[in-house]
Amino acid sequence: MAVGLTGLPVLHPVPGLRLGTASAGIKKPGRRDIVLIEMPPEAHCAAVFTRNAFCAAPVLVAKRHLAASTPRYLLINTGNANAGTGEQGLRDAVACCEATAAVAGVSAAEVLPFSTGVIGEPLPAGKVTAALPAAFADLNAGNWVAAAHGIMTTDTVAKGASRQLEINGHRVTITGIAKGAGMIRPDMATMLSFIATDAAVEPGLLQRCLQAAVEVSFNAITIDGDTSTNDACVLIATGRSGLPLLVSEQDPAYVAFALAVSDVCTALAQAVVRDGEGATKFMTVEIENGADAEECRQVAYAIAHSPLVKTAFFASDPNWGRILAAVGRAGVAGLDVGRINIYLDEVCIVQGGGRAPAYQESFGQAVMEREEITVRVQLGRGACAARVWTCDFSYDYVRINAEYRT
Amino acid sequence: MAVGLTGLPVLHPVPGLRLGTASAGIKKPGRRDIVLIEMPPEAHCAAVFTRNAFCAAPVLVAKRHLAASTPRYLLINTGNANAGTGEQGLRDAVACCEATAAVAGVSAAEVLPFSTGVIGEPLPAGKVTAALPAAFADLNAGNWVAAAHGIMTTDTVAKGASRQLEINGHRVTITGIAKGAGMIRPDMATMLSFIATDAAVEPGLLQRCLQAAVEVSFNAITIDGDTSTNDACVLIATGRSGLPLLVSEQDPAYVAFALAVSDVCTALAQAVVRDGEGATKFMTVEIENGADAEECRQVAYAIAHSPLVKTAFFASDPNWGRILAAVGRAGVAGLDVGRINIYLDEVCIVQGGGRAPAYQESFGQAVMEREEITVRVQLGRGACAARVWTCDFSYDYVRINAEYRT
Repeated sequence: MAVGLTGLPVLHPVPGLRLGTASAGIKKPGRRDIVLIEMPPEAHCAAVFTRNAFCAAPVLVAKRHLAASTPRYLLINTGNANAGTGEQGLRDAVACCEATAAVAGVSAAEVLPFSTGVIGEPLPAGKVTAALPAAFADLNAGNWVAAAHGIMTTDTVAKGASRQLEINGHRVTITGIAKGAGMIRPDMATMLSFIATDAAVEPGLLQRCLQAAVEVSFNAITIDGDTSTNDACVLIATGRSGLPLLVSEQDPAYVAFALAVSDVCTALAQAVVRDGEGATKFMTVEIENGADAEECRQVAYAIAHSPLVKTAFFASDPNWGRILAAVGRAGVAGLDVGRINIYLDEVCIVQGGGRAPAYQESFGQAVMEREEITVRVQLGRGACAARVWTCDFSYDYVRINAEYRT
Repeated sequence: MAVGLTGLPVLHPVPGLRLGTASAGIKKPGRRDIVLIEMPPEAHCAAVFTRNAFCAAPVLVAKRHLAASTPRYLLINTGNANAGTGEQGLRDAVACCEATAAVAGVSAAEVLPFSTGVIGEPLPAGKVTAALPAAFADLNAGNWVAAAHGIMTTDTVAKGASRQLEINGHRVTITGIAKGAGMIRPDMATMLSFIATDAAVEPGLLQRCLQAAVEVSFNAITIDGDTSTNDACVLIATGRSGLPLLVSEQDPAYVAFALAVSDVCTALAQAVVRDGEGATKFMTVEIENGADAEECRQVAYAIAHSPLVKTAFFASDPNWGRILAAVGRAGVAGLDVGRINIYLDEVCIVQGGGRAPAYQESFGQAVMEREEITVRVQLGRGACAARVWTCDFSYDYVRINAEYRT
């Protein structure tokens, strides 16, 4: 079950933003599998999407609509990814946008579609559009918790994060939700995450703010190394807080705001890892003293993706040879293994490339019994660092992915 | 259990070469965990080793000895990898060579050491050297089967391959053994493989012959993506067949010989995959019509390493969306997904980037029930191809790697 997650925190409403859910019966009858998010006309919206070449139909349509106009509605369905569905998939995604636009009295380009679920099956667009009136009737600023549940797939818990801060005498709210569980190694954003704020932010700056936050949060997690076809992360700014428009990266008000956005993204990204399919351990992999950030990320992912390292953590086995082997195969040119130190939390297990003289198996064992563990590797090459969060690899990962769909 | 392996084939003795095994009690008492291979003075020996930066002490010592002289003995132990063991590990590896040399009356540089087993624990060199007299007493040309068993770790079956062919009226024999099971994504050779022939081959040509054979066999398999610290593959040529010395790549006799070596390496490499930890399926991943071989290998490994693809094969679930997602995230620049076709054996599942019109779930299901399945992806970009062998990902992979060591 989800490691260290004890239920949703308070999700503060974001003035100007309303959410509604409804049941379209896409995969499971009765499940509230449609989420509709409504933005006020003055809102702006930044978004990042998967870099998987096979990106899903809704991703293509959302990008096209974003380029053409300012969105007023996000329409999200679970139970079907509408990916690998060719021309028909594009038509289905557009049809859902058109139906939403017809109910709302806006243009289809003002609606962004998002889908998550099984890849390769046609989206039952008729079921989606039939559920739209109910979703509209449900629109309410207080529906964040229902929306967090609405976007779940194999997630075992709903995921949300919320911050409120005072900036220049104005209370600013940032609230977000995310879904994760499997096919998670975001290359741009997580599977699906929607974040909103009542700050007013110049659109270009809003996009840079989201990209910077995603880089250190969603783009620093991995569950199984499988980048999804449907990843998307959206940041909406309704501008209702009263705080004057943020236009500059140097403005201290923007800095405070951007830190809080980063904080919300990090909490959501970590929640995705904590609820990774079959996860029993939450691992932070920190690489230090690298020559550049890229080689640090390379080493971090070699460890975080290693099935041998992940199964050793599942077994609470301080089998540090597997960590060492992963560091060695990470492809860092000219790596001097004689300068490498490795720590499990506070315990130094490898010093100068070999077993640390003071290390005893019982020390490593004590750390491995914990639910949350930091693996820290010092490369001895420079001053750069990188951090990645991941989870272990258990019987349940295999069970979940062997049973999914069947 | 091992997919499609029904016991060792006949392993023809290689004239001039003798093998002996003995029990040193390194990890399990009574287990014959030492293998000694003796070459005649006129033999030559080619070798390739892991490219993992953390290569084990015996790998470092073997490379140094190979550079200094022509080997007469290979000394292999299981139960301990002597990796991550620092200076003491190097001293232990050298001590084992010196003890072997003392019994045989050769120099220590004429002995190459090989180790496989747990990483990070000191090699009990005393136990190894104490077992040497028994290994020498056991030396016999007919001991290939015992040697194949002697080098096993988590392997469930011993692995060997043997070919005899007539070249210019001379019977030439090529026989080899290998071990695999886990931490298998060779970046030079498999965990450990030893092959011998009675052909006479000029040393430089012998090395090129081995490298070419390894490239299409051991370097084209993966079980878990974890390149080992101890990979090594050795090809010994005793020169006893009577066939004149092979000196040229253009010589038809060499071409016939090299094909047979490649054939033996491929049989051994496939046996390693068939007996991958927890394997229930043997998968061939063929990528065709790529712009170059490198991008084909990239796509092949993205599929072969995907935990989602591997668990779907374990479940016999034709969840082709996972294959498509893996192709999409393989990092091929400018990939036009609209030109991609994907086949499961003879069944076309994806055509032009989407579900093939004639495809029905029952067709895919029928293929997925098989024990051996070929995934074929056509990229529609050029004339290059690549092929990789791998296995599925089962509960038993997790069990084996969560229990190993404990």
